[in-house]
Amino acid sequence: MSNYKSITPQQLPKFAGIKTFMRLPHSRTTEGIDFAIVGIPWDGATSYRSGQRMGPDAIRKLSVTLRPYNLALDVGIFEHCTGVDYGDLTVVPGYIEDTYTKIEEELSPLIENGIIPVSMGGDHSITLPELRVLARYHGPAALIHFDSHTDTNEQYFGKPYYHGSPFRRAVEEKIILPEHSIQVGMRGTVYSKNAYDDSKALGYEVVTMAAIRQMGAQKLIDVIRERVGQSNVFVTFDIDVLDPAYAPGTGTPEVGGWTSGEAIEVIRGLQNLNYVGFDVVEVLPDCDRADLTALTAANIIYEFLSLIALNKKMTNDNEH
Amino acid sequence: MSNYKSITPQQLPKFAGIKTFMRLPHSRTTEGIDFAIVGIPWDGATSYRSGQRMGPDAIRKLSVTLRPYNLALDVGIFEHCTGVDYGDLTVVPGYIEDTYTKIEEELSPLIENGIIPVSMGGDHSITLPELRVLARYHGPAALIHFDSHTDTNEQYFGKPYYHGSPFRRAVEEKIILPEHSIQVGMRGTVYSKNAYDDSKALGYEVVTMAAIRQMGAQKLIDVIRERVGQSNVFVTFDIDVLDPAYAPGTGTPEVGGWTSGEAIEVIRGLQNLNYVGFDVVEVLPDCDRADLTALTAANIIYEFLSLIALNKKMTNDNEH
Amino acid sequence: MSNYKSITPQQLPKFAGIKTFMRLPHSRTTEGIDFAIVGIPWDGATSYRSGQRMGPDAIRKLSVTLRPYNLALDVGIFEHCTGVDYGDLTVVPGYIEDTYTKIEEELSPLIENGIIPVSMGGDHSITLPELRVLARYHGPAALIHFDSHTDTNEQYFGKPYYHGSPFRRAVEEKIILPEHSIQVGMRGTVYSKNAYDDSKALGYEVVTMAAIRQMGAQKLIDVIRERVGQSNVFVTFDIDVLDPAYAPGTGTPEVGGWTSGEAIEVIRGLQNLNYVGFDVVEVLPDCDRADLTALTAANIIYEFLSLIALNKKMTNDNEH
Amino acid sequence: MSNYKSITPQQLPKFAGIKTFMRLPHSRTTEGIDFAIVGIPWDGATSYRSGQRMGPDAIRKLSVTLRPYNLALDVGIFEHCTGVDYGDLTVVPGYIEDTYTKIEEELSPLIENGIIPVSMGGDHSITLPELRVLARYHGPAALIHFDSHTDTNEQYFGKPYYHGSPFRRAVEEKIILPEHSIQVGMRGTVYSKNAYDDSKALGYEVVTMAAIRQMGAQKLIDVIRERVGQSNVFVTFDIDVLDPAYAPGTGTPEVGGWTSGEAIEVIRGLQNLNYVGFDVVEVLPDCDRADLTALTAANIIYEFLSLIALNKKMTNDNEH
Amino acid sequence: MSNYKSITPQQLPKFAGIKTFMRLPHSRTTEGIDFAIVGIPWDGATSYRSGQRMGPDAIRKLSVTLRPYNLALDVGIFEHCTGVDYGDLTVVPGYIEDTYTKIEEELSPLIENGIIPVSMGGDHSITLPELRVLARYHGPAALIHFDSHTDTNEQYFGKPYYHGSPFRRAVEEKIILPEHSIQVGMRGTVYSKNAYDDSKALGYEVVTMAAIRQMGAQKLIDVIRERVGQSNVFVTFDIDVLDPAYAPGTGTPEVGGWTSGEAIEVIRGLQNLNYVGFDVVEVLPDCDRADLTALTAANIIYEFLSLIALNKKMTNDNEH
Amino acid sequence: MSNYKSITPQQLPKFAGIKTFMRLPHSRTTEGIDFAIVGIPWDGATSYRSGQRMGPDAIRKLSVTLRPYNLALDVGIFEHCTGVDYGDLTVVPGYIEDTYTKIEEELSPLIENGIIPVSMGGDHSITLPELRVLARYHGPAALIHFDSHTDTNEQYFGKPYYHGSPFRRAVEEKIILPEHSIQVGMRGTVYSKNAYDDSKALGYEVVTMAAIRQMGAQKLIDVIRERVGQSNVFVTFDIDVLDPAYAPGTGTPEVGGWTSGEAIEVIRGLQNLNYVGFDVVEVLPDCDRADLTALTAANIIYEFLSLIALNKKMTNDNEH
Repeated sequence: MSNYKSITPQQLPKFAGIKTFMRLPHSRTTEGIDFAIVGIPWDGATSYRSGQRMGPDAIRKLSVTLRPYNLALDVGIFEHCTGVDYGDLTVVPGYIEDTYTKIEEELSPLIENGIIPVSMGGDHSITLPELRVLARYHGPAALIHFDSHTDTNEQYFGKPYYHGSPFRRAVEEKIILPEHSIQVGMRGTVYSKNAYDDSKALGYEVVTMAAIRQMGAQKLIDVIRERVGQSNVFVTFDIDVLDPAYAPGTGTPEVGGWTSGEAIEVIRGLQNLNYVGFDVVEVLPDCDRADLTALTAANIIYEFLSLIALNKKMTNDNEH
Repeated sequence: MSNYKSITPQQLPKFAGIKTFMRLPHSRTTEGIDFAIVGIPWDGATSYRSGQRMGPDAIRKLSVTLRPYNLALDVGIFEHCTGVDYGDLTVVPGYIEDTYTKIEEELSPLIENGIIPVSMGGDHSITLPELRVLARYHGPAALIHFDSHTDTNEQYFGKPYYHGSPFRRAVEEKIILPEHSIQVGMRGTVYSKNAYDDSKALGYEVVTMAAIRQMGAQKLIDVIRERVGQSNVFVTFDIDVLDPAYAPGTGTPEVGGWTSGEAIEVIRGLQNLNYVGFDVVEVLPDCDRADLTALTAANIIYEFLSLIALNKKMTNDNEH
Repeated sequence: MSNYKSITPQQLPKFAGIKTFMRLPHSRTTEGIDFAIVGIPWDGATSYRSGQRMGPDAIRKLSVTLRPYNLALDVGIFEHCTGVDYGDLTVVPGYIEDTYTKIEEELSPLIENGIIPVSMGGDHSITLPELRVLARYHGPAALIHFDSHTDTNEQYFGKPYYHGSPFRRAVEEKIILPEHSIQVGMRGTVYSKNAYDDSKALGYEVVTMAAIRQMGAQKLIDVIRERVGQSNVFVTFDIDVLDPAYAPGTGTPEVGGWTSGEAIEVIRGLQNLNYVGFDVVEVLPDCDRADLTALTAANIIYEFLSLIALNKKMTNDNEH
Repeated sequence: MSNYKSITPQQLPKFAGIKTFMRLPHSRTTEGIDFAIVGIPWDGATSYRSGQRMGPDAIRKLSVTLRPYNLALDVGIFEHCTGVDYGDLTVVPGYIEDTYTKIEEELSPLIENGIIPVSMGGDHSITLPELRVLARYHGPAALIHFDSHTDTNEQYFGKPYYHGSPFRRAVEEKIILPEHSIQVGMRGTVYSKNAYDDSKALGYEVVTMAAIRQMGAQKLIDVIRERVGQSNVFVTFDIDVLDPAYAPGTGTPEVGGWTSGEAIEVIRGLQNLNYVGFDVVEVLPDCDRADLTALTAANIIYEFLSLIALNKKMTNDNEH
Repeated sequence: MSNYKSITPQQLPKFAGIKTFMRLPHSRTTEGIDFAIVGIPWDGATSYRSGQRMGPDAIRKLSVTLRPYNLALDVGIFEHCTGVDYGDLTVVPGYIEDTYTKIEEELSPLIENGIIPVSMGGDHSITLPELRVLARYHGPAALIHFDSHTDTNEQYFGKPYYHGSPFRRAVEEKIILPEHSIQVGMRGTVYSKNAYDDSKALGYEVVTMAAIRQMGAQKLIDVIRERVGQSNVFVTFDIDVLDPAYAPGTGTPEVGGWTSGEAIEVIRGLQNLNYVGFDVVEVLPDCDRADLTALTAANIIYEFLSLIALNKKMTNDNEH
Repeated sequence: MSNYKSITPQQLPKFAGIKTFMRLPHSRTTEGIDFAIVGIPWDGATSYRSGQRMGPDAIRKLSVTLRPYNLALDVGIFEHCTGVDYGDLTVVPGYIEDTYTKIEEELSPLIENGIIPVSMGGDHSITLPELRVLARYHGPAALIHFDSHTDTNEQYFGKPYYHGSPFRRAVEEKIILPEHSIQVGMRGTVYSKNAYDDSKALGYEVVTMAAIRQMGAQKLIDVIRERVGQSNVFVTFDIDVLDPAYAPGTGTPEVGGWTSGEAIEVIRGLQNLNYVGFDVVEVLPDCDRADLTALTAANIIYEFLSLIALNKKMTNDNEH
């Protein structure tokens, strides 16, 4: 076990000090860590509001209020795993394809070393290069995709990449396993009667918010778990799956979404899957209020770290 | 069918262009349209905060994020009906009675031509002149009134008109059918034990938020439908029927209200009534956050347009 | 019955006039009143954000929207009891212990005269001196503590007093009855597996938000009522027991909390307990939006006043 | 000399306590005072933004930071005169003419008793009823009018009263002395080449901001003093005479205005005129930032009180 | 002379109606107009904050407060020229080079028809395609460039186009006349001692803010006029040439800049140059306050329209 | 020369990465550095608004926009000196005297090693412990104190320490040289005629803002330089010396202050004094707008670093 630890409020008040995620050391190390918090401050490919590049900063700022033990999951994060704040990756404003290259280059060292990346967007277009790198080392993963939109559009003004298309591209590039992938939380106004059929044709299971309201949290958990099975799993969480009352700071809000409590309840049900990576995207601080959305995003990441810790704990327990 | 259509995001990005409601053409036409979006930027008659005159602008701004197909109601709005953004009516700051005259004059051409007005306030005092014009051409209508307040006060500093009295005046003027009218969502602190008795004495059915919590959405839908029956129906939606967590941008907020999802669920249950008009009032952008309230109001209007489209579809289907 | 009454909106519009709580007279009287609204603008002992000193002002500002009759509890506040806005107590920035002395001195005249103090914080450290004064005159009270945190930490940088420790100190000082006291609403990330054991070891019953979600409102009410029994009761309400979507203006927000409606429902279930005092703390206006949190706090206080009025009514009825 | 005094920060911290202007007693007395601070929360007659009704509240809130001695004018306000916060007058939303009646009724007791009113708007239409009452008791006064607009328009949608016409009405009603009156600070885009000729035709001297930039502060002071001479004087200060960088919280901002320092310098040059009243109007808190505009308005009022005190001092000195 | 005219506040209150620039008709016409207001909502190439895509909307919203006569320049805009709000051009998020192609395609019809484009950004990278189109039809123009930065960097992460390089590219592409071009207002911290030498080496005259403070407005006007001489002239105005106190809503603010009054004074001195186009860029509404920056940008554009009108007036006068 | 260097925007975009001051390495080293940026997040001793504890964070965030060469002073900061971001010191909320002890303990290692501390407040009470430590190692220093208030009050509610008294305490403790110290920028309303006499009696020279307006920048520079002479010098810069239009984010704003450009001009005139330390205090982010005040504070610190670099350069030049 490495010695990367959060600074505690007993060492320095929470409001004091350099803001890294959960006050972890900031390091570009790839040794001795299980996970790395990675900021990807790209917002060049959004179809409505921009400003998501400031998301990682805002999430870090509020993450200092998090404490290391997750009572609901009964796990102390740093008792079982260790990690760093890797800082932010380089992006190239105005050039999404070059940005993808940069992201892939800078993420690779982590993935090659078996470290689980937990990324903070940025807009949703950043998930594609993450999935590419992961597929290169782990093979294609099952995708658990929380969002109010499917993001499986064909193109945008003739171009393949923007925040509305990554999950079409991911299937086309065979870097995920659509037959084990699931899109959760879809709602809002759509372009046509067969709005979600495109996603289904690509192989995704689509669970709309309306369906979730019918089935309840436990059933949804079961559906997700069954879908992904024993595959490697990547979780991508678009903050707009939450209702804008709970996450006003985002780019394409849709009314009628989850409370943050509802989202967290579902994530907590996803223990012991074979996680290879996570991200939280579309936090837009300039539209936030008193950092509410950033705080929520920090809590979502916290639950992801808890899932990593639980897996690690089980592994450790099994080894002993 | 006229050719009034929204500009799509495939033609121009959502964030670009002049902001009309759902990017419909702005026109003062009364021909070839089924509905007209009408702004009524009057806020001179409020009892707490003012600034609602900027409501129509804010709603238009966010309405560009709406897409034309309503999956929940299974209807494509522009497949069955057509409309324009009629712009804003003239109001006379400081003079509510002259303002009423202006509103009536400028709405009349729409009503005379059988067009359904969908108005955006402005404070709630604007509904009275809307009802006057509608009654003149259609006879008195049943009122479905969503609000946290009954707005049936007797007077305000000796004057008959302000945003707390329109639904007393409407009964007195016989421009609605109280026996088919219903007030929904009342809550908050009140002036006396018999706070809602005044409304009942006027003939309204009053369903408090407390009662709604007991009966549930489906029962509420049934109650409303039964009340209005086959009458002509006007729906007025005061955004403060929502909880201020969901609609902070309003003038007289009351805690303990609906989520936006709950409100929309009920509206969706009101298909196939004989609608003659709609409005959404009391959006106050200066108290909003990241346009959350405006977005919600735009979505409420969207559901109204869907109800219009459904009626139109049924008519068209019957004709064939 | 004294003549302390709110100015009504029929006398002066709500938005007009000097802002006292519910437009009650501002007076330092201790005669002829049942309750006194007291501001305690101290924010020097917070572990994350500060600015709570402006809380009383903000609550007063929005309290003018409250009307005197509580329909849910069927009681007109000023029909049965009377009170004043006592203004704010003196605090000494930078010196918590001197501040405690001031608070105790300035509260004593109220308590000595049998007046129920309803205080507005300020951060949660202010509750300790309130409890001290109350214990001096009434003996130790049962505590009903709504909060997302237990605030029973041992110390903070070696010092005994800050907003995270008052409810440990209160037990140590024997100014409350832990065996009749209950902490309600705990949630969020914690420091260790036995996070709530400290509170339990002190004698408190702890009901987490997770447990509340299981048991429901009525059961929670029963649990609280049973716990406090016939003891004197002090209620302390940390606004962060609410979800930050409902109360963004606070210092240490935790996602996954109550809606304001849920909180009020529980408070309304606590009729006819032997109340000796109340407070609402941790409202931080600079992080609020359109005074949403202040409005909510004003409503919480309103429910407290209603409980006082109900007790008074019962007493009066019994006397006749 | 009466005993109306501000609460000092040595008695109670500035941030604490009920917010009256400069923490003066709130009273409707007309005895023993030289001046009365009066809020007139009317915003029904504005041609762009509304929300000025909340102006008096915001000014009061920030006025607590003011201290009693004006070094630049070498005068201690409360050493020479005394006053109260009279609270806010009643207004009738939606009815400007009834509002005028109310204002006149409620101001009269002050004027009849020789008390100098120092009013806080509200929009600029409130100055007309103030001038009416003053003229009734003192005869017509010279007007010193600081503003970016002349507010001498003929009408607005056919009606005589709104915030763009009071200074035409005042001349027509012969309640001011145009030949001794002066409008100072005009700038911004206008409707026609002879934009300021209307004002001149009414008898006003008009000094544009462009002219002020040429002549400098001292010359402007001389021009104003010469204009008003020995007449009774009323000063009306529209906060939009300041640049919106210095006063963003207003309804019809114009770029290119005064800094607050420049405005105060000119006011300080206007000592020993025969003042009968003052007002500051058009503060709009919802468009303000961190109460900057309210703070500035409070300082402008403070300079007015200093002028009153200087006059009083001179009178007192002469009497001895 | 065409009939394109602003809606006046006598026809409809300023706050009412669809928001086009100065309430001009929205049209894609290229006939019968002298100028066209064009939004270019691209913000993909910024090096610090993003969100400038919402700039055109915000400028339009505040432009309704502008009136048609410019007293300082003694010209009524619509007495001598006519124009429309052309709406916004298409941009392609994530792809700056494709965006350039779109901008060039959509601007060409205007330029081909001799219409003067007055564009609203968007970030400063949009000026390059504007200059390209203008050069194609008019030959290279002299550039008057108001900014706190020279924007003549070589590259950004290896790519040629972003908001820091357009004025190097413009020289390289020979679409401006560097020997007649001038950069005005440079200030702030820089990368090296020879920070402005790059610009000079490209052929620009560079006038820093420090130099402007020395020379004064009139001398600066002379220097600019002499530099551009009889060439065709394009003016590009980066709002960050203003001090952030006057223009907080921008992406890369630098302290120590112009007041808006100082900037306007200089623009007014630039009468009777051979203008072929104008733009105002880098307005970022999410960082603005009460639309102050947008209002200022609208006023800058207004001065540009006045310069167009003056030229037109002179031409018309000469023709008669 | 150590290798502590800022990350450049060519290495990583400005908006990306962990936010340290000017993107310097975060280290608690005391070796190989000339200066250390130190946050002191204490806001417990303020007399009006609180929230200054978040100041260091906000300043760091905006400091990433600073570039290393100061053209006005013709110096490249990192060409001549080196430094780190030392992070924030520990403070003890509620206990100012214990906080002072902590600050002194944690600053001492820097001072002992001859490193120049450049501190970021926090409220102004933090300067006293800074001066104590400096005096311990360097002897008492001359103080250059920029502020709108003298902060030489006797006490506050009977206690010696708060943000209004440090410069009385400093004289009493003989840790500064009053005869070489100067207070610059005083303005605003005061408590009595002899408001600044207290400061003078303590030995300070006091230059009010009114006097500065008379003498001009160069004369002020001369006065300051003459006052401090060859003494060791500490500069303390209260951001409220600026006008609140330029620095809205502060706790006790006073209208009529400096622009940021005026302040920087004076600082630049203070080259080649014997600096032993600097601080910038009273930045309050929750009252700021788009980080304007934080940006300004970062620029002030930048000028301080430039002065350090100039001294170092001169020393280095002399050595060669």
